[in-house]
Amino acid sequence: MGPNGVLILFSTEPRVYTNDVDYEYRQENNLYYLTMLKQNRATLVLLPGNAQLPEILFLPRRQPLFEVWSGHMYTVEEAHAASGVNEIWDAREFEPFIQALRQGQAYRPKPENIFMTGEAGPTAAATGFANLFAALEKKQAELYLLSSGGPNSREYRNEQRFAAEWEKTASGFVIKNAAPIFANLRLRKSELELRLLQHAIDITTEAQERAWSVAGRAKWEYEVDAQVVYTFKLRNADHWGYPSIVGCGPNATTLHYIESQGAVSPGQLILMDVGAEYEHYTADVTRTFPVSGKFTTAQAEIYQIVFDAQDAGAKVIRPGAFYSDVHRAATEVIKTGLLKLGLITDRNSEQYRLWFMHGTTHWLGMNVHDVGNAAKLEPGMVFTNEPGIYVRLDALDNRPFNFKPEEWEKFKQEIRPAYEKYKGIGVRIEDDMLVTETGTRWMTAALPRKLKEIEAFMARTRREP
Amino acid sequence: MGPNGVLILFSTEPRVYTNDVDYEYRQENNLYYLTMLKQNRATLVLLPGNAQLPEILFLPRRQPLFEVWSGHMYTVEEAHAASGVNEIWDAREFEPFIQALRQGQAYRPKPENIFMTGEAGPTAAATGFANLFAALEKKQAELYLLSSGGPNSREYRNEQRFAAEWEKTASGFVIKNAAPIFANLRLRKSELELRLLQHAIDITTEAQERAWSVAGRAKWEYEVDAQVVYTFKLRNADHWGYPSIVGCGPNATTLHYIESQGAVSPGQLILMDVGAEYEHYTADVTRTFPVSGKFTTAQAEIYQIVFDAQDAGAKVIRPGAFYSDVHRAATEVIKTGLLKLGLITDRNSEQYRLWFMHGTTHWLGMNVHDVGNAAKLEPGMVFTNEPGIYVRLDALDNRPFNFKPEEWEKFKQEIRPAYEKYKGIGVRIEDDMLVTETGTRWMTAALPRKLKEIEAFMARTRREP
Repeated sequence: MGPNGVLILFSTEPRVYTNDVDYEYRQENNLYYLTMLKQNRATLVLLPGNAQLPEILFLPRRQPLFEVWSGHMYTVEEAHAASGVNEIWDAREFEPFIQALRQGQAYRPKPENIFMTGEAGPTAAATGFANLFAALEKKQAELYLLSSGGPNSREYRNEQRFAAEWEKTASGFVIKNAAPIFANLRLRKSELELRLLQHAIDITTEAQERAWSVAGRAKWEYEVDAQVVYTFKLRNADHWGYPSIVGCGPNATTLHYIESQGAVSPGQLILMDVGAEYEHYTADVTRTFPVSGKFTTAQAEIYQIVFDAQDAGAKVIRPGAFYSDVHRAATEVIKTGLLKLGLITDRNSEQYRLWFMHGTTHWLGMNVHDVGNAAKLEPGMVFTNEPGIYVRLDALDNRPFNFKPEEWEKFKQEIRPAYEKYKGIGVRIEDDMLVTETGTRWMTAALPRKLKEIEAFMARTRREP
Repeated sequence: MGPNGVLILFSTEPRVYTNDVDYEYRQENNLYYLTMLKQNRATLVLLPGNAQLPEILFLPRRQPLFEVWSGHMYTVEEAHAASGVNEIWDAREFEPFIQALRQGQAYRPKPENIFMTGEAGPTAAATGFANLFAALEKKQAELYLLSSGGPNSREYRNEQRFAAEWEKTASGFVIKNAAPIFANLRLRKSELELRLLQHAIDITTEAQERAWSVAGRAKWEYEVDAQVVYTFKLRNADHWGYPSIVGCGPNATTLHYIESQGAVSPGQLILMDVGAEYEHYTADVTRTFPVSGKFTTAQAEIYQIVFDAQDAGAKVIRPGAFYSDVHRAATEVIKTGLLKLGLITDRNSEQYRLWFMHGTTHWLGMNVHDVGNAAKLEPGMVFTNEPGIYVRLDALDNRPFNFKPEEWEKFKQEIRPAYEKYKGIGVRIEDDMLVTETGTRWMTAALPRKLKEIEAFMARTRREP
């Protein structure tokens, strides 16, 4: 944003569960990124061209008589301490402030509505707006709002309504999308962000281990998942960062299997893809482990390929490497492994995608699929490393688009023995990788990952539940 | 609905958590009430005036190649088994069906898009529409859609968009709100509904008891809550029915305290208001118990008044009684009790509302504050019975609207000794009451409620954790 820009960040609209019940409130990520404010109805305005008044936080006035119902609302001091913003006005001043801004007029709120004011104070505000209003005259002022998901965004409805209202009448402002600015900031994590993310990962590690340790006694997948929700809450995670995936046996071959309604069977693998969210930062960690504590030969063969693919992906991570190299390195190992097992017949084709149909990496942060866009890796970037192989029971029932009919029949015939051997096995291993000055840090290193380590862990939990 | 009506029930729009992550999908209550279908993008159309084609379920066609990503989609047989609907068409037929309907034309879907058809079959459909189309000619046809919450409903956006689109051009249909029809049905619970609700209550009972048993060792409220989320998941509840309230000491005096960030202190009470939801039916159960296992004298005095108020409320429940009698009976006991403790000075005033500011009852079912409207009680109705007393720390800092300034000063002076004695104590006891043929059934009876029972339970968990 240059000096001609105004940024407005609204608090997230609460999400309705049913009728008058909402989900627990979760602040909009970018507002939280700048202010750490968790409460609804706070609005931040940034005026980077205004040296006297670079930022204003609009905060609802406390109503002690209603706090018996609504719960505690921020005091001005609390909002200031969380956000660092010095200029805090009553939320009721937002509308008139905006109306004045549109018309190129510096606005002075009612004195009783100025909860806190910076050194310059609102009397100095008029001069501070000179740059912006000059741009406005030339129709070069810019209004930055978050937007995503097209005209019917489910996430940014406040912004859409505001923009629609704004554009009903002409103004000197060009409306711009603020999201890319934040995506760029959030792509490189600060030390604080890395500490929060590491804490989310540590909670998730404990959740995984607790879940593994009950799996042998569980009848249903949801009983295993119960250890996950328990650990997240016990250690005060905000929430999950995405719905937990706990899939036993063939359920592990559905990528986004979140029902957890299947039986837990001895002899099967459980794929568990879970992530705690702590102060808006989410972990994303997958392990695949044997219910009975020991991998079968077929399971171990698949597991080892995925493990080696993940290692190969990790090895290429360093500043300056291409982000896409990670997927490429992992895929090469997967192809070689699948050919060896007899699940593909041609290493130089797209056949492998029948068994490994997703990417190996995505950025990680305040979203599990975090914002950001970079071809080359830099220190402070964090992403997942998650190859997988999924031998779906129905894999040979439906011809994929990338096979021609004749090809498909021949392929099926050739790989059927391998399919019969490995069918119903799904394995994913997913770790969270920080790019460091010299290479990478496995932020998830504390959680057993090697096949033998997992078996040793399972044996230990049997002795010492 | 008469024969001139058409009812359309859409699946709920998924609720966004952040970016591309949604909350676990939860079906719209009324569609679930009629079909028990949990999957998105199912649409039910009821045509009560059409003997040949009284109901059509529009269901998305399965796409096996994508189920690796999306998870399992209903087969036609599964959808039929869950819903009992015999006429099931491809969801792509919904739009053309609706277009034809608007124009008074019976619609025949493409044969390959008829997944299942009833005895009459779609060829007979043309005659079945005679009534409706006659009404349409006279502009007396009725289109029933769910609506609530005014023009910007957060819950029924699909319906709003559909209605807005519908009304862009004239039609012979009058749009009506379907919600009151369902409210009336859902007010009286069937045997199946009562079994589901009882199961939700049983899960909640276990959650309460597990939580009580760890409270003495917990440092933070969220550790107590961890037992609640654990139990809900372990017993396969859908979710909570509303965010859990676990408030220790003064936090118990905030009615909707859902943060659970406070410390657990020996000598304090914990107020725990939690409800599991099972197959869309939610429990709603509050207990207030001493962290250390024994009520202090002051705590016990408050507790006993609330207990007696609840008993008084329960005693008036029987078919034919007024719903409002329950609150009235409870309130009389609260008033008497508060006067005795010195927390009010005038029994015949609204003073008691300073300490008991909410109602005693609300309907309970698929919503925690369930739909329904009835002056008189009938068998099958279920509601909560939940008096409370909350001595907020700031209760005397802010004059409530119903006190005149002079009154307030005098009142404060007179009750201050009692306030000092009881401040920071919050007690609510909440049970779920079914109206029976002869009176009431405490659906929550399995959970200790008497002061001595709670103390005995706490003593027992200390001996046998």
